[in-house]
Amino acid sequence: MSNVVISGTGLLTPPHVVTNKELVQAYNDYADAYNAVNSEAINSGKKDILNHSSCKFIEKASGIKQRYVMIKEGILDIDRMMPLVPRRPDDGLSITAEMSIAAAREALKQANKLPEDIDLVIYGASTSERPWPAVAVEIQQELGCGGYAFDMTVACSTGTFGISTAVDAILSGTATCALIVNPEYASPQINYRDRDSHFIFGDVATACIVEKEQTCSGKNVFQISGRKLETHFSNNIRTNNGYLTRAEPDLTFERFFEQDQFFIQHGRQVFKELLPLICSHVKNQLNKYDLNIGQIRRLWLHQANINMNMFVARNLLGRDPEFLDAPVVLNEYANTASAGSIIAFHKYKDDFISGEKGILCSFGAGYSIGSLILEKL
Amino acid sequence: MSNVVISGTGLLTPPHVVTNKELVQAYNDYADAYNAVNSEAINSGKKDILNHSSCKFIEKASGIKQRYVMIKEGILDIDRMMPLVPRRPDDGLSITAEMSIAAAREALKQANKLPEDIDLVIYGASTSERPWPAVAVEIQQELGCGGYAFDMTVACSTGTFGISTAVDAILSGTATCALIVNPEYASPQINYRDRDSHFIFGDVATACIVEKEQTCSGKNVFQISGRKLETHFSNNIRTNNGYLTRAEPDLTFERFFEQDQFFIQHGRQVFKELLPLICSHVKNQLNKYDLNIGQIRRLWLHQANINMNMFVARNLLGRDPEFLDAPVVLNEYANTASAGSIIAFHKYKDDFISGEKGILCSFGAGYSIGSLILEKL
Repeated sequence: MSNVVISGTGLLTPPHVVTNKELVQAYNDYADAYNAVNSEAINSGKKDILNHSSCKFIEKASGIKQRYVMIKEGILDIDRMMPLVPRRPDDGLSITAEMSIAAAREALKQANKLPEDIDLVIYGASTSERPWPAVAVEIQQELGCGGYAFDMTVACSTGTFGISTAVDAILSGTATCALIVNPEYASPQINYRDRDSHFIFGDVATACIVEKEQTCSGKNVFQISGRKLETHFSNNIRTNNGYLTRAEPDLTFERFFEQDQFFIQHGRQVFKELLPLICSHVKNQLNKYDLNIGQIRRLWLHQANINMNMFVARNLLGRDPEFLDAPVVLNEYANTASAGSIIAFHKYKDDFISGEKGILCSFGAGYSIGSLILEKL
Repeated sequence: MSNVVISGTGLLTPPHVVTNKELVQAYNDYADAYNAVNSEAINSGKKDILNHSSCKFIEKASGIKQRYVMIKEGILDIDRMMPLVPRRPDDGLSITAEMSIAAAREALKQANKLPEDIDLVIYGASTSERPWPAVAVEIQQELGCGGYAFDMTVACSTGTFGISTAVDAILSGTATCALIVNPEYASPQINYRDRDSHFIFGDVATACIVEKEQTCSGKNVFQISGRKLETHFSNNIRTNNGYLTRAEPDLTFERFFEQDQFFIQHGRQVFKELLPLICSHVKNQLNKYDLNIGQIRRLWLHQANINMNMFVARNLLGRDPEFLDAPVVLNEYANTASAGSIIAFHKYKDDFISGEKGILCSFGAGYSIGSLILEKL
């Protein structure tokens, strides 16, 4: 049992909403235009017709009703289907640093900490804004933190893996108070022309403060009393976006917009392979700490899609979950990768009383699974 | 004082050499062709003439005589100036995983470990091959390791930061034996059309095994008896390569090949700002552990360029260094980012006798500085 705690959390909710209705309208208009332009090839069987998307399908498949985005302009433009993201000057604040800092300020306030109390900043995002300089270092400077900073990623589990990595540093004395930020600027990495995935992700940023119980003066503090991380390789959730694309033979402009440069998912296989891993992961963890699920008041799960979330909750609880057993934010935020389980924790932890326990559990691409047993102090 | 050790190291030296002579010839041919095509614009002052590069300039500025590359085809082709990197199928092994695994096998052998002894894999590269699934998880599976894996980066310091992060995990009990790989597949991220930077980087991969002294059975083992990491933000070493470029307004194919999509460096400012930070970093560390530089047999420094390396060595030693005081591999490998200091350690550690100490020190973009005091057991 460690005496390291999460003493504060923060959330940046982006300024713009894209509803399913808007997204479906844009996709269907795009599909109609595509089908008209390609009617000859479609009729001769050389190209596939694009079928319409629908709000009903999206909500049933995912539980998502809307998503937030940092920049809405361009996403619903059927000639673009991509947010219009102006290039920022190198001496201006990067967009994911800006998102992170907004979430970090709330987390610092909640933890009753000043930026100068922080001596480790971990930036964990599914897709990082740039390779170097590490965005974590930019955030460290902009806030006025000391110590050191680095970027890490293991996709949707970066939230729990980031917290656990900070716990390691604090337990070994390398750091005393850590800020972990999970800025998920997903919208530029979504192919809005792809019916299977155009609705899945939203933009958001979360932040957590992790420190020893002895140094903490926050009022809503959770001890991290168990940690378990595991990974198993799979290509079923993948992107090939990266600097090697540019070096491919016979490169064309269009290559940068092919599906594998965005998000690829073999959903059924993920469902089949990942769900048993998650359930046994958490059960093994409970066994290890001699706990039973009845002693766990809440599951703050990765917000993948409603069916995966319900499957995990039902399997672990052995019954249908009430909303507060495993709160879902998918309807409002959509899938927000590494930030999803942290949003659920941030929004649904204030009703805990001292001694109550919950499990913060992330899962996703990698495959990666991370779970933390959290106990309200 | 920790009882965690580096029990093995490995190095993958890529199969192809590019000499300065070859590189300069290709650059000069490219410049001549560019100047001929653009002669009118150059004469009217609308474009700058491209000056020739030279082997003498490169060697004086950097100490580099050659570099290794994974794929040579395309680099010297003046119509391409970019390695020709075939796209690998998703179910094939990724190129940086392949590089990492070759280095890892040597490190495992040296440490007398089997892949199944490893329960943490950290992939640390300046530029990662893709965002997800994390390449570390692919390496974990391909080798047959257990536990968990993730990718991290803080540019040229990822080697020492990666080792330190593994030490944290081992000290806190999250892992027992870690593999840290630093695959630097730099050549596709170099603008071979840029006279200022075309010669700087080479491809390489290194690997380290980190575990507790109690579990280790290797023969050439170094205790990690001191660690110090720090970061300070700077844009003086930067790239804007990333997924946001594709979302910029008025995007053209050419945009993907502009200088900021490769490597940008304001060398003089880096020299002026970073060198004092490095020197005081190491001096403070020695003070903290009550050591003087006379007790340090060797400096395994980041291989930035010969002038930076000599400045740091001279400043710390208070005299001109002998080769084995601060071994340089720049002449053979060029700058290899996070792998540079690890190559120096890998190649120049076998002559140490029990009780002798050295400092493994990385520095670079971020700015980031990491140093480890290593003592031969």
